[in-house]
Amino acid sequence: MLYEFKDIIDPSMLPSRRKYLHYYIVGLVDGEGCFSISIKKQEDTRFGWVIDPVFHVTQKKEGEQVLRLLKRVFNCGRITSKPGQEDTILQYVVDYRKHLFERIIPFFKKYKPILKWREFQYFAEIVEGLEKGEHRSLEGFKKLLEKAYQLSEDRRHTLEEILRSIEERVGASETIRRGP
Amino acid sequence: MLYEFKDIIDPSMLPSRRKYLHYYIVGLVDGEGCFSISIKKQEDTRFGWVIDPVFHVTQKKEGEQVLRLLKRVFNCGRITSKPGQEDTILQYVVDYRKHLFERIIPFFKKYKPILKWREFQYFAEIVEGLEKGEHRSLEGFKKLLEKAYQLSEDRRHTLEEILRSIEERVGASETIRRGP
Repeated sequence: MLYEFKDIIDPSMLPSRRKYLHYYIVGLVDGEGCFSISIKKQEDTRFGWVIDPVFHVTQKKEGEQVLRLLKRVFNCGRITSKPGQEDTILQYVVDYRKHLFERIIPFFKKYKPILKWREFQYFAEIVEGLEKGEHRSLEGFKKLLEKAYQLSEDRRHTLEEILRSIEERVGASETIRRGP
Repeated sequence: MLYEFKDIIDPSMLPSRRKYLHYYIVGLVDGEGCFSISIKKQEDTRFGWVIDPVFHVTQKKEGEQVLRLLKRVFNCGRITSKPGQEDTILQYVVDYRKHLFERIIPFFKKYKPILKWREFQYFAEIVEGLEKGEHRSLEGFKKLLEKAYQLSEDRRHTLEEILRSIEERVGASETIRRGP
């Protein structure tokens, strides 16, 4: 039995082996988890925007013990109230890029989400690109942005708006080629 | 690899062993599943009401392959559109009591839900009670009703309303003792 979690949950309620617990987790995350990339305006950066990856899992308050289990298994992240639904909803959130790169992504490459596989793949490519510093060049930044829009188009700004705003900022000296 | 599901999903996307897939399923169900007992008016029954257990798992249309996986693993149930959200939401539904009793309940006794353990326990007790025919006596029917209300009070009728309607139907000849 997994006595290592006994301060969080009665071990008799858990799968008997760590590996089984990992498959439980990928099933749970396939339902309730989210690999998201937000694009935020931030004036003090080179292109005026940041690409911000976040992994989170949402639960009603009564499910807190499972979020604590995730935090222990991944050994990173934090549990917070969901903004706007503070009284009822909790989230397990990992947004520190080093932890996403070193802990979250390798886990889900090994224990593959089924429903969220496509979403996870874009997420992993973007995080890996950021880790390599691809966002520091204009071409690299645009490529990562386009990938983020392939992952989801449900965003406050269109890709065209952001590319235009970058173009204006960087100036006419650098030519911005648009992807297909 | 689990080639037995290859008509549903690329086996390389699945856990490598059946047992691992079962832990994935309990994680998914802990998030997206529901063990529910509905209480429905039905005039042509002895007490005028039926106790109707249903297990279902909800998914967006894109998640259909996982519902097909569940149907194959449990070897029962059906996949339908969710009433009112036919265009976007699917449900895997098991409502045939024999299948709940013989397939669904034993599975989740072995692969325990963590978040939904309490809900599952009430569900299992009610299904087992129905299988034993406890609902055929007035006392047994009331006990099962009370259990259903312990599982959830979010219902169209209050327990008191239903007990009163049964009392009127059965008549003054049988005394209806109320539970604590």
